[in-house]
Amino acid sequence: MTDAESSRGVRLVVVGSIGLDTIETRFAKRDEILGGSVSYACMASQLFAPSGMVGVVGDDFPETYTELYQRAGIDLAGLQRVAGRTFRWSGVYEDDMINRRTLSTELNVFETFLPELPETYRQAPFFLLGNISPGLQLHVLNQAESPRFVAADTMNLWIDTARDELQEVISRVHLLTLNDEEARLLTGKHNLLDCADDILAAGPQFVVIKKGEHGAMLLGKNGIFLAPAFPVRAVCDPTGAGDSFAGGFMGMLARDDELSDNHVRRALLYGSVVASFGVEAFSLDRLQALTHSDVEARLDELRRMTMTGLSAT
Amino acid sequence: MTDAESSRGVRLVVVGSIGLDTIETRFAKRDEILGGSVSYACMASQLFAPSGMVGVVGDDFPETYTELYQRAGIDLAGLQRVAGRTFRWSGVYEDDMINRRTLSTELNVFETFLPELPETYRQAPFFLLGNISPGLQLHVLNQAESPRFVAADTMNLWIDTARDELQEVISRVHLLTLNDEEARLLTGKHNLLDCADDILAAGPQFVVIKKGEHGAMLLGKNGIFLAPAFPVRAVCDPTGAGDSFAGGFMGMLARDDELSDNHVRRALLYGSVVASFGVEAFSLDRLQALTHSDVEARLDELRRMTMTGLSAT
Repeated sequence: MTDAESSRGVRLVVVGSIGLDTIETRFAKRDEILGGSVSYACMASQLFAPSGMVGVVGDDFPETYTELYQRAGIDLAGLQRVAGRTFRWSGVYEDDMINRRTLSTELNVFETFLPELPETYRQAPFFLLGNISPGLQLHVLNQAESPRFVAADTMNLWIDTARDELQEVISRVHLLTLNDEEARLLTGKHNLLDCADDILAAGPQFVVIKKGEHGAMLLGKNGIFLAPAFPVRAVCDPTGAGDSFAGGFMGMLARDDELSDNHVRRALLYGSVVASFGVEAFSLDRLQALTHSDVEARLDELRRMTMTGLSAT
Repeated sequence: MTDAESSRGVRLVVVGSIGLDTIETRFAKRDEILGGSVSYACMASQLFAPSGMVGVVGDDFPETYTELYQRAGIDLAGLQRVAGRTFRWSGVYEDDMINRRTLSTELNVFETFLPELPETYRQAPFFLLGNISPGLQLHVLNQAESPRFVAADTMNLWIDTARDELQEVISRVHLLTLNDEEARLLTGKHNLLDCADDILAAGPQFVVIKKGEHGAMLLGKNGIFLAPAFPVRAVCDPTGAGDSFAGGFMGMLARDDELSDNHVRRALLYGSVVASFGVEAFSLDRLQALTHSDVEARLDELRRMTMTGLSAT
């Protein structure tokens, strides 16, 4: 099977990092488990729509991890395997399971990564530019021939070190996602509605401000949508929650191929629910076993926890 | 009109502090404005149900402030006027309009305050024990003859300094409200669901964990309810937001005289909306002008921002 054949059906192209993560929480420690933004995002999106992964690994990347992607059905035509060591990250979560301290970062093969899209990916309608440098995000965007909807994620590092390129990304995407502190850092405003105004003025149709355990806000020209986070009792490892949120969201959009406000809002709820599963285990352990009925059941549970569940009296 | 006559119709008794607040934000400063937990809570609850105020002021308390309570229709039979200076607090909000630093606290007449309920208050069905020492909360509770529903608010100060009395309060009320950090401080747990379990095990039917701009969670034996906060663009002064939230909530419960899960959840949304108005101005400036149609309009807006507003497709 050639790359072109295997990736013919890709509806959503996702680019991001692939890493071997060493993670310690108050409950457990895991060494060199599969991580990275594109791993989480693709595993989430593939549940809803055929997804193609754009990333890089070294020659030490365990075959079992590649097989895990394959078993999920993720298209790997855009996955580069090069000589050298795979990107590695290690960190420790504080007792609150929210704040974390990075112990070490080894860029390795990621340092010279240049994301090249297979021919078939270039015509895909949906793109998720996961959390990598804005320069690489632009490089991917430049290869997209006629994208219908492009979402980009970013973080404080790029706001601090690559603001001009990030501004170009923002001006060219349909949706930007970032967390509340990053929205404040990017705009210099405090009130999140003011932050959103500034970001929307720079081009995107939508901005999603992520607030972790507090959910997310979608803001656009048709108003605000508040997506609650599903309250998770057993948070095992929050790594990748933002990525699986974005992946689940974009997967649903790509599945329905519909961009009405109603669809965008609904997709956000799916992203939120998928992310809530992801944090219940290390790495992709929970996401890889996730079924549609798991997702629908939790979405129903979330409905019962919100205004939707109230009778009109 | 005697006290007994005026307070015949009181459905909800609210106890708490009354203060003259000096408040500075990045936008403005106000000197000796009307504040205190019972001021905010009663102004909010009176919109929905006849409320009686239990508190203390000194002989320097401005007549205009008493008139403001009266114009709102709040029953003042439980308001003690004694010789001395009124309680005073002053603080500065940080630029985020969330964190604040206390500059000074003068207890004054509050130091020897002993809340005595007028005879007619003792038979009231609903009680809100606002944020004062657990000892005073118990003193009020001991005078209630047959309360149907009692809610208590508390704060870190009492968790640190009066834990035993607070535990007694918790064991005797139907609902406890506190913020997320206080829930963690009280229980020593991190996950808010675990915190809620511990608190519920100590007696109350419900616990409300307040998360400020992120909304609130209601937890009880019939599950979780997530009450969103209405996103406010122009936060002028967040002082008293938790009190007007609790007041609006208890006012709605007292109005409907119904304690089904559905009513409790709905009342929480009213509390959330009332609080969102309160922070748009200093002191009670916005709350005193609030109408039912203001509240219903914002509640509709909130519905459109949440899952309730989604069509089923």
